[in-house]
Amino acid sequence: MNKYSVEIFGQRYLLKGEAAPEAMTEVAALVDKKMTEMAKHSSGIAPAKLAILVALNIANELLELRREKKERDLFIGKKTKDLIERIEDEFEELQLG
Amino acid sequence: MNKYSVEIFGQRYLLKGEAAPEAMTEVAALVDKKMTEMAKHSSGIAPAKLAILVALNIANELLELRREKKERDLFIGKKTKDLIERIEDEFEELQLG
Repeated sequence: MNKYSVEIFGQRYLLKGEAAPEAMTEVAALVDKKMTEMAKHSSGIAPAKLAILVALNIANELLELRREKKERDLFIGKKTKDLIERIEDEFEELQLG
Repeated sequence: MNKYSVEIFGQRYLLKGEAAPEAMTEVAALVDKKMTEMAKHSSGIAPAKLAILVALNIANELLELRREKKERDLFIGKKTKDLIERIEDEFEELQLG
């Protein structure tokens, strides 16, 4: 278990987890960046609400990427099946036996 | 632009965005579930801190999935190249011309 101290939107957080320190830094940087961006567009917003909006924004990206990955797998699967069928058809025409 | 009202951890949020209502509901349900889970393991935590931990948790999943997708693309790309090379080698042995 790794422990890591990160700063997000001016506050320190102690994180614990299996992830490598570099991965934790990247995660914290992403959340910090989104907090700063979102705060610009919502002046005077309560920090708890801002953090929820950031969580929603990141969750949206996560679910979009999950859908994208699923569609891509299906597409590649279909593409390879089509290709095998095309190759089989070409050889069938040669009547090799 | 779609508007949608969702409840997260007992609070109502008005969301605006291009996403379909079903996608927004799914996003809100994910954040709400994570808030409830995380709250169980951190009793008495301030809501703003809880939301940040949830945002970090979701961001971690997002970055892991991005890495996974990249590795998978590289793997499939390598696999298809290897396959083409193997097929070329097999035909070369036949010395068809």
